[in-house]
Amino acid sequence: MQVYHDQLEVRTRGKGLYEITDDIVSKIDQRAIQSGTVTIFVQHTSCSIVIMENADPTARRDLEQFFERLVPEDADYFTHDSEGSDDMPSHIRMVLTRSSETVPIVNGTMRLGTWQGIFVFEHRRAPHRRTVLITIIGE
Amino acid sequence: MQVYHDQLEVRTRGKGLYEITDDIVSKIDQRAIQSGTVTIFVQHTSCSIVIMENADPTARRDLEQFFERLVPEDADYFTHDSEGSDDMPSHIRMVLTRSSETVPIVNGTMRLGTWQGIFVFEHRRAPHRRTVLITIIGE
Amino acid sequence: MQVYHDQLEVRTRGKGLYEITDDIVSKIDQRAIQSGTVTIFVQHTSCSIVIMENADPTARRDLEQFFERLVPEDADYFTHDSEGSDDMPSHIRMVLTRSSETVPIVNGTMRLGTWQGIFVFEHRRAPHRRTVLITIIGE
Repeated sequence: MQVYHDQLEVRTRGKGLYEITDDIVSKIDQRAIQSGTVTIFVQHTSCSIVIMENADPTARRDLEQFFERLVPEDADYFTHDSEGSDDMPSHIRMVLTRSSETVPIVNGTMRLGTWQGIFVFEHRRAPHRRTVLITIIGE
Repeated sequence: MQVYHDQLEVRTRGKGLYEITDDIVSKIDQRAIQSGTVTIFVQHTSCSIVIMENADPTARRDLEQFFERLVPEDADYFTHDSEGSDDMPSHIRMVLTRSSETVPIVNGTMRLGTWQGIFVFEHRRAPHRRTVLITIIGE
Repeated sequence: MQVYHDQLEVRTRGKGLYEITDDIVSKIDQRAIQSGTVTIFVQHTSCSIVIMENADPTARRDLEQFFERLVPEDADYFTHDSEGSDDMPSHIRMVLTRSSETVPIVNGTMRLGTWQGIFVFEHRRAPHRRTVLITIIGE
């Protein structure tokens, strides 16, 4: 059993989903792990890691629209707004989703389902550079 | 330290919670792991894995009612509806909850709290067969 | 590779976020793990483990206000209310957030981002004593 750590830098260009599935597969292939788990962790409080349907882009647009309505930028009771009107909503969207995902690796393959992809879910309007940590535990 | 992979097939009959706690306990017992973690991962984008109160069925019904209201099937801005009106809401409900859970194993026992159970949370109306991967890491 | 288990007791005094980052760092230091992961798991169905912005207390107050509005105590369709009007909302808030978090440990340090803290998110109004399990896997 071994532990391997890798890192991705993901450049985002506003709110929405950015797929990183292939980058993670590539890290697993480099480590030649046959059996274990991979944990994908994002080091920020205004974006998330989520698993989502990866075939149809309309599903990702509808998801973004849903979150715009669920956590509106103009809620009059928000006081934490030092970085703008999308500041507090971005923290709430992060808490409502996830900072990490853990996926099994079996026979050298990350075992996502047919329609599952792994995404950085950006909650800020401005471009950001996001750091994603990838930890592989296995043999 | 070892890694073991197992798999469950869960047949669902419409929206709601389906408990799988005993199935997971049984897999841990078969592997005779004393200390480690178990990760439960579902390979689908229209159902979730959640931990929930497992004593009172009314709590599970209220949870389903809450999600029906939070993510209504008839939202007029959804465009991803190729599989019906419960298609897009099922992806959103999945993103708002979780695709996996990780629970400690101590002295051979999965250490859930007294009232915690592990459930497949089905978001589609039609019956489905769901694949749940169980990864045990420990010694 | 080794597995270590530790436990925290967290006393809460009503709804809101209680930071436990330093307690977890302290457990990792005691175990002298250089590389691996730490999983933080809460054994209850009416509070959560979340990662949140840990610099500005107004962000935490706004988060609590958001959840008060998203899951109101007086929803007329709730039937699970044996423990009071905050009973069912507390389960829903837990399902909408998380029961656990997993964070990488690299060079002996838990690799949270600059603004990330780990919190028990209490959903009940009365004081509670919460049990948090900490599992460290690594070498």
